[in-house]
Amino acid sequence: MSRFFSSKFLSLTPYTPGEQPKIMNLVKLNTNESPFPPSQKAVSAAVEAAEILQLYSDPTASTLTSKMAEILGVTPEQVLMTNGSDEILNFAFMAYCDKETSVAFPDITYGFYPVFAQLYNIDFEEIPLDENFRIRVSDYLGINKTIFIANPNAPTGIALSLAEIEEIVKSNPDNVVVIDEAYVDFGGESAVCLVDKYENLLVTGTFSKSRSMAGARLGFGVASKAIIQDLNTIKYSTNPYNINRMTMAAGIGALEDEEYTKANCNIICKNREYTVAELKKLGFEMTDSSANFIFAKHRTVSGSEIYTKLREKSILVRHFNAPRICEYNRITIGTREQMDKFLNAIREILEGK
Amino acid sequence: MSRFFSSKFLSLTPYTPGEQPKIMNLVKLNTNESPFPPSQKAVSAAVEAAEILQLYSDPTASTLTSKMAEILGVTPEQVLMTNGSDEILNFAFMAYCDKETSVAFPDITYGFYPVFAQLYNIDFEEIPLDENFRIRVSDYLGINKTIFIANPNAPTGIALSLAEIEEIVKSNPDNVVVIDEAYVDFGGESAVCLVDKYENLLVTGTFSKSRSMAGARLGFGVASKAIIQDLNTIKYSTNPYNINRMTMAAGIGALEDEEYTKANCNIICKNREYTVAELKKLGFEMTDSSANFIFAKHRTVSGSEIYTKLREKSILVRHFNAPRICEYNRITIGTREQMDKFLNAIREILEGK
Repeated sequence: MSRFFSSKFLSLTPYTPGEQPKIMNLVKLNTNESPFPPSQKAVSAAVEAAEILQLYSDPTASTLTSKMAEILGVTPEQVLMTNGSDEILNFAFMAYCDKETSVAFPDITYGFYPVFAQLYNIDFEEIPLDENFRIRVSDYLGINKTIFIANPNAPTGIALSLAEIEEIVKSNPDNVVVIDEAYVDFGGESAVCLVDKYENLLVTGTFSKSRSMAGARLGFGVASKAIIQDLNTIKYSTNPYNINRMTMAAGIGALEDEEYTKANCNIICKNREYTVAELKKLGFEMTDSSANFIFAKHRTVSGSEIYTKLREKSILVRHFNAPRICEYNRITIGTREQMDKFLNAIREILEGK
Repeated sequence: MSRFFSSKFLSLTPYTPGEQPKIMNLVKLNTNESPFPPSQKAVSAAVEAAEILQLYSDPTASTLTSKMAEILGVTPEQVLMTNGSDEILNFAFMAYCDKETSVAFPDITYGFYPVFAQLYNIDFEEIPLDENFRIRVSDYLGINKTIFIANPNAPTGIALSLAEIEEIVKSNPDNVVVIDEAYVDFGGESAVCLVDKYENLLVTGTFSKSRSMAGARLGFGVASKAIIQDLNTIKYSTNPYNINRMTMAAGIGALEDEEYTKANCNIICKNREYTVAELKKLGFEMTDSSANFIFAKHRTVSGSEIYTKLREKSILVRHFNAPRICEYNRITIGTREQMDKFLNAIREILEGK
């Protein structure tokens, strides 16, 4: 740290991204990426855009925004596209939390929420999940705080129903409720259908998971026109050209190939059910996942031991060394072949090999 | 605006990017883009990266950072790559300005500086350029504020010498001085050679101009290790995966083709001198530009009239409707062919056609 660094950041602990190892031939099940390549329509569009990088990208991302709006069933004025969904979450923390308006989110959830809260010096409440790692809806009713809920939640994978989400949004009419739907395409119910009904609802999404575009950095927010206007004010005051040409083009390409996305999601869901069934036979307990990952602990072998031994066998999963969840590992669902390699490695570990 | 928007942003006026028109066949001289395509090495690398978008990009951007450091003659720990140089400027405002430490920059300069200051509610002083639109170095000596100076400055194109920059940096040892070198490759002297000598110096740069990559969004900061650590703390607390795979690859490709960049810069400089000489014959006055644009006013025809009439002839330049500079237009230097079209249009306008 330099001696010039603003004192407001002295106790800030940044987010730790999942490891992006350079070792090849690793079965990489640690950052919830898709095992499938991006749509060829996305690739072709990006390739074409690469030839004209000398020109700035469209700061309004108008074609992409309209296409996204059409697919979501809203107007383009209700959509903002961002440089990954971390950017829209960042904008939402800036816009809707301050000294007067504090923020609440589950104690076990996307690890970036408390980082944003600390970054902007916002009071935050981490509301404990219940003993089964479920969000207790009653904890979020009429709490007079800005609320961030990942649905399905991470790293548990557990989803709230649309009715439960609506109850939370409805009971906090004077605060923005952000529903982070990064994983919704693997079995969750989207709250996008509620944005016309509730002016305080902001739904965020990403192309990183179901659309195989983690490396392109593309996220979005859907809300009332007024909320999108607020977030645009922040965008045009931080980074107007936030999305590069290639990503913008790839996003359009991906949206023109929704069949491919849906087919991939179906395969992931099947592979998840298969993996869950096999792990149960091997003595694992899991939360009920509606996401492209599972959250699993073994009855007798510790979470860190499983993590370490998998790593020795070139299989990478994510282990959070945090209270309540240190016995678990979060395992991204990959191809059937990857899951079989993972399951075989687990069998070997349990057999002491 | 929604009724939920934090009151701290109520008077915020966002940055207005230069127009990105969709009309084709326009001579686009309004946003200081390069008229040349990106290096084919950049394009090929981006194309290859587009095939594996399902994987997150390297949050440390290690290969790109090392390559950039090598070219700049510093260590990788002294470099941070960002999503355009707006992002590194944003990080610098966050890190080095607050309630206790206010900020100063010229009254006529990159229009984003006052936006960042307002965004973070930082007191800012806009120090007037002299009557010839030059930065008066004496105004910046020992002022006990964080300082942002674009060198060459925009939209004037006027550069300070390295000795003048050093004087400013040296006389403000307790404050960070940010030298924004977006346009340095067209005739300015870079201050990167001073980063080992002054722990309070941060130099920022971009791939948008000389490297023909405006549409890829790639910028960087160079400073002491401690300053880069601060800025990384901000980066990992806002958007760890700030640079997408394709841009990262294109950046590496561009840095492997510095000959191409230099050759393009030489052509731009020649075209600038040619355009300046022709405009002088036509009754224009110009600042002494070391950038890829010129800042010109006519002795008798108003700035807005020239802007409007050029536009009618499908030639787009940038006009700032601001005090002191409203008689000027900022004209990006393009190819010789583009500049001849521009000059012919100017001749027609002056002849009343």
